[in-house]
Amino acid sequence: MVDLRSDTVTRPTAAMREAMAAAPVGDDVFGDDPTVLALEEHVAGLFGHEAALFAPSGTMANQIALQLHVQPGSELLAGADAHVVTYELGAAAVLGGISTRTWPSVGADLDVEQIAGMIRPVGYPSVPTRAIAVEQTHNLGGGSVVPLSVLRDLRDLSEKSGVGLHCDGARIWHAHVADCVPLAEYGAVFDTLSVCLSKGLGAPVGSLIVGSRERMAQARVIRKRLGGGMRQVGILAAAGLHALENHIDRLADDHARARRLAEALAPLGVVDPSKVRTNLVPLDLSKSSLDAPTLTGLAAKQGVLISPMLPSVARVVTHLDIDDEGLDQAIVVLGGLLSAEL
Amino acid sequence: MVDLRSDTVTRPTAAMREAMAAAPVGDDVFGDDPTVLALEEHVAGLFGHEAALFAPSGTMANQIALQLHVQPGSELLAGADAHVVTYELGAAAVLGGISTRTWPSVGADLDVEQIAGMIRPVGYPSVPTRAIAVEQTHNLGGGSVVPLSVLRDLRDLSEKSGVGLHCDGARIWHAHVADCVPLAEYGAVFDTLSVCLSKGLGAPVGSLIVGSRERMAQARVIRKRLGGGMRQVGILAAAGLHALENHIDRLADDHARARRLAEALAPLGVVDPSKVRTNLVPLDLSKSSLDAPTLTGLAAKQGVLISPMLPSVARVVTHLDIDDEGLDQAIVVLGGLLSAEL
Amino acid sequence: MVDLRSDTVTRPTAAMREAMAAAPVGDDVFGDDPTVLALEEHVAGLFGHEAALFAPSGTMANQIALQLHVQPGSELLAGADAHVVTYELGAAAVLGGISTRTWPSVGADLDVEQIAGMIRPVGYPSVPTRAIAVEQTHNLGGGSVVPLSVLRDLRDLSEKSGVGLHCDGARIWHAHVADCVPLAEYGAVFDTLSVCLSKGLGAPVGSLIVGSRERMAQARVIRKRLGGGMRQVGILAAAGLHALENHIDRLADDHARARRLAEALAPLGVVDPSKVRTNLVPLDLSKSSLDAPTLTGLAAKQGVLISPMLPSVARVVTHLDIDDEGLDQAIVVLGGLLSAEL
Amino acid sequence: MVDLRSDTVTRPTAAMREAMAAAPVGDDVFGDDPTVLALEEHVAGLFGHEAALFAPSGTMANQIALQLHVQPGSELLAGADAHVVTYELGAAAVLGGISTRTWPSVGADLDVEQIAGMIRPVGYPSVPTRAIAVEQTHNLGGGSVVPLSVLRDLRDLSEKSGVGLHCDGARIWHAHVADCVPLAEYGAVFDTLSVCLSKGLGAPVGSLIVGSRERMAQARVIRKRLGGGMRQVGILAAAGLHALENHIDRLADDHARARRLAEALAPLGVVDPSKVRTNLVPLDLSKSSLDAPTLTGLAAKQGVLISPMLPSVARVVTHLDIDDEGLDQAIVVLGGLLSAEL
Repeated sequence: MVDLRSDTVTRPTAAMREAMAAAPVGDDVFGDDPTVLALEEHVAGLFGHEAALFAPSGTMANQIALQLHVQPGSELLAGADAHVVTYELGAAAVLGGISTRTWPSVGADLDVEQIAGMIRPVGYPSVPTRAIAVEQTHNLGGGSVVPLSVLRDLRDLSEKSGVGLHCDGARIWHAHVADCVPLAEYGAVFDTLSVCLSKGLGAPVGSLIVGSRERMAQARVIRKRLGGGMRQVGILAAAGLHALENHIDRLADDHARARRLAEALAPLGVVDPSKVRTNLVPLDLSKSSLDAPTLTGLAAKQGVLISPMLPSVARVVTHLDIDDEGLDQAIVVLGGLLSAEL
Repeated sequence: MVDLRSDTVTRPTAAMREAMAAAPVGDDVFGDDPTVLALEEHVAGLFGHEAALFAPSGTMANQIALQLHVQPGSELLAGADAHVVTYELGAAAVLGGISTRTWPSVGADLDVEQIAGMIRPVGYPSVPTRAIAVEQTHNLGGGSVVPLSVLRDLRDLSEKSGVGLHCDGARIWHAHVADCVPLAEYGAVFDTLSVCLSKGLGAPVGSLIVGSRERMAQARVIRKRLGGGMRQVGILAAAGLHALENHIDRLADDHARARRLAEALAPLGVVDPSKVRTNLVPLDLSKSSLDAPTLTGLAAKQGVLISPMLPSVARVVTHLDIDDEGLDQAIVVLGGLLSAEL
Repeated sequence: MVDLRSDTVTRPTAAMREAMAAAPVGDDVFGDDPTVLALEEHVAGLFGHEAALFAPSGTMANQIALQLHVQPGSELLAGADAHVVTYELGAAAVLGGISTRTWPSVGADLDVEQIAGMIRPVGYPSVPTRAIAVEQTHNLGGGSVVPLSVLRDLRDLSEKSGVGLHCDGARIWHAHVADCVPLAEYGAVFDTLSVCLSKGLGAPVGSLIVGSRERMAQARVIRKRLGGGMRQVGILAAAGLHALENHIDRLADDHARARRLAEALAPLGVVDPSKVRTNLVPLDLSKSSLDAPTLTGLAAKQGVLISPMLPSVARVVTHLDIDDEGLDQAIVVLGGLLSAEL
Repeated sequence: MVDLRSDTVTRPTAAMREAMAAAPVGDDVFGDDPTVLALEEHVAGLFGHEAALFAPSGTMANQIALQLHVQPGSELLAGADAHVVTYELGAAAVLGGISTRTWPSVGADLDVEQIAGMIRPVGYPSVPTRAIAVEQTHNLGGGSVVPLSVLRDLRDLSEKSGVGLHCDGARIWHAHVADCVPLAEYGAVFDTLSVCLSKGLGAPVGSLIVGSRERMAQARVIRKRLGGGMRQVGILAAAGLHALENHIDRLADDHARARRLAEALAPLGVVDPSKVRTNLVPLDLSKSSLDAPTLTGLAAKQGVLISPMLPSVARVVTHLDIDDEGLDQAIVVLGGLLSAEL
């Protein structure tokens, strides 16, 4: 099986397994796990922030961060297609009483002036805006990358308006590689970030929230309430440290393969390769007679797994466990299915 | 004082007070208040629905309706400037765990195709869309009216997609008068409506939710939990019945006065009179050196009360207690202040 | 029909209707209703507090007060049979994220030492206790009255521990009359109180929250979110003012009638008259072959309405609209039914 | 350091690390991790249930189970000292809108008749009771064990009343060993159980919810919303499988050591050894001049770590990483400190 459903499907490498097997651990709920502490310190440092906190998933990392910014009864601004809006099962409202107002997402194309116009200040009868969330890279936007200059405009807006700025940076590593922007430059823009070890980086489990020491102390309480307090989780943190040291630069290979796939399928009208900048390839089936679940089912029968994201959008993802041979097979299978139905 | 802050400021007329004083009442929590029952039956009938339920405010009526449609963890689609999104203090998320995804509001100009594109079906990993809320007339949209044909397109969308359709009809009476659309035509479009007796209609207190008998039974439970169960509230229902009989047609006068005010202030560049179709006149101060709170404060000193809705938007509202003389005074005062700062 | 289901069923007197018809009113959401302001000031004064806030129901008044004391994730202590625990449809948890830990209620018999032992301080891994709620008089406790001395012990506990003290005083007027304790003495004990105009006092609708000016300012925001902001509600406030002036002392008559009913039914083993101190008479049917719904149904057929509170508890309530003749009828009917099944 | 704060502090053994290093894994959010599937099937089988679901913590496992039983606005019955009530940061109310009514806990001494009397049926105006939660063994109850016969009485109550029965079985393994009750016998009593791999069993991370296939399908959705969906978490599941095979029977040693410590400290009046049946030793400092934080601080300076649970309760816990030598040191240090202050 060539598994292109997501970069979350990667299996730990032998070296990563060794790192896990050898990791010194302790009870992280008590703050005693040296490997977790090392990982948190390392990641905070990468982004130039004071502190970080390990979490079992990107969803929890995001939700904790949102609760840090937005009190119940206040609001978050985000793109209508953002992961925090679309793929976290309504957690912001259910768990945090957080209202969300959305701008129409066109991937990572942010219109800062539009966002500025959406901010509702404290002191009016309207719901006050407390935070803006940006996704980097943007999942439903096909792995698109928000340029640093746009992020800096958002930073200015954030400071002028007193509205917090959160980055859902599950795949920020891909932006860093694609745009050659140092992680600390991204860090300088945001009040909080969530980053994921378990997608492109290939670690088995884990995300982190990055921010100030004070916010991370509050984050620990929220994490406990959500059930994210884990014990000797240094086992997983060791994999994360290994991934950070070894698997960032190689993301360029995933990007190249994604681009190659897009170029191969471009003649079929389902993707614009010039928009494929990282490891996600969204297939737009709106003009096809195959919907996403059907294409997914047919491809699976031929050994290629992809994801139906919406009725007319399927997603193909390159990652650590996909080599050129697998990619070739995917091109043959998907190309064949999409050609046949033309 | 000429009080143009809102049509909520109207005081009951002498005839209305008489109706209240004479109303037969009972304990409405037990379902025993004959005047409330009469009002509920009357309002349900106006809209061609099975049942209705009295509520202490438009906010509660809306929130109950939203909870009828949207389970915690599911989502509502609404305009970014909708009252349910902006002026209900985040109640949907706090009280109901309801996620909201918004389209960019331009008053009552609804793009049905855009809304259709936002619907997320059940069965995908995304948050399922359960309801669409439309505001008629649209408050922050300056009292604008959604045409019946657009609402019917939304009805088609609702039926095709299985997504519920709610009308925040606090000022639906104004739409009915402005567009000469029978209330039952509006009723036929929506699964639920909230309507308000205490704004343009001039009753002191009260809104109703309108819908099926089954939904109203659930609505009673939600109303109780929210603290909206009241006892001999037939006193207020009597005012509502009186208002429905006597104060609907006269809204045309309020509309005419609003239009007259808009025409008088139009040369100052703060309002387009062709867009003033009902009783709300939004003053756009974005090109003025006065912000809304400042203009509001200066006008109050000269005996004219208006509302700052957003930093650059003030709102002027005509209603039952504003006659031509009051309107003339408002034109003089606001015209003077806005001219002076030119 | 002799309606003994609740004291909420009373209908406004002619004098009260006159007061309502003549009341000056304004938009109370803007703070402009003179009658509401007068009522709020009057009630605050009665209890020696700075401020008060009108609410549409006792449930909303309680829930607002609880939210003032207890942040989401913190806890309230209350009796297991308290109205806030049992009869508000889980509002504390749903609307406020408030955890409740309960002591076993035996009506108004409070064991202050037991309550003291339940308090969980801030700074431990346990959920911090933020408030204690006491019900005066106690509904499921059969209208029992907490002695002032016990309340003062609770006050001491509250001050020593930093835990807030709220009184669900829906029927505190009855305690005041039964124990001859000035309302201000009760006021001195509690940080917040909710009091109801619409039960024993006979006003059609309305409760108030009483407390500090600062807390009432926050309470206004919470009330708006819950949908309790009403406009010219001075109509109802006028009834409340009238009730406070005219219907407090007469509660002694209701108490006497309740006692008379209890004495008449005592030989049937369903009530201990020595425990009937106010206007509620709980009938304990646990040793009867009639359960509460059945007894309720049979009595209704003979023109006497009572309430099934729990499977084995029915409640009989005396009030403003029950005179001696009505009471006699109730005694005959209930006595007959309960004798027959012996 | 002799770390007796909790059995959560255990570090994985060499054999357990080997099992983790060798575990086959997959993406468990997609249901593809063979080791997780094996663990879930194994644990379900141990308790005679259809299915199980891995979760990152005992808190999340409990909270998911509570949400399976109790809809927002309904209620849970539990002991006032239960972990779900006291040590999960108010999660039931915040995350699930779940009301809790509590019986006064005296450890595992359950009064089934008292619990029966607390149940509020559906169809009355009171909050309906949907579930009862029992903790086995009981943490704040000093590791006490609920006898199987009592649990069976609860099962009868559950079936008669239609109220669900959940077991917080974080340390159910200890009950199984202490009372020689097969796990399947416990399983037969409960609708859902949560069990923990990371406390007495010595695995680094992980709990499971056990129940019907249908409930576990819903549990997956709730887990995702709470942020508990993890990817190649078979790494951790492998440790759990190893622990289940190797670390259950040896809990008898922990129990014996706990008993030995209790006997040694009994003359100081802080613990009744006859009540120490498993691995938790609560020290009752209510008659001591040392409060729990002070004793904890002084002991730490002498190399012995314990936990302050409440101001007057410290907890000592034996586990996999505590041998006889460590225990001897603890006895000397704690005995010395408690004697000195006599």
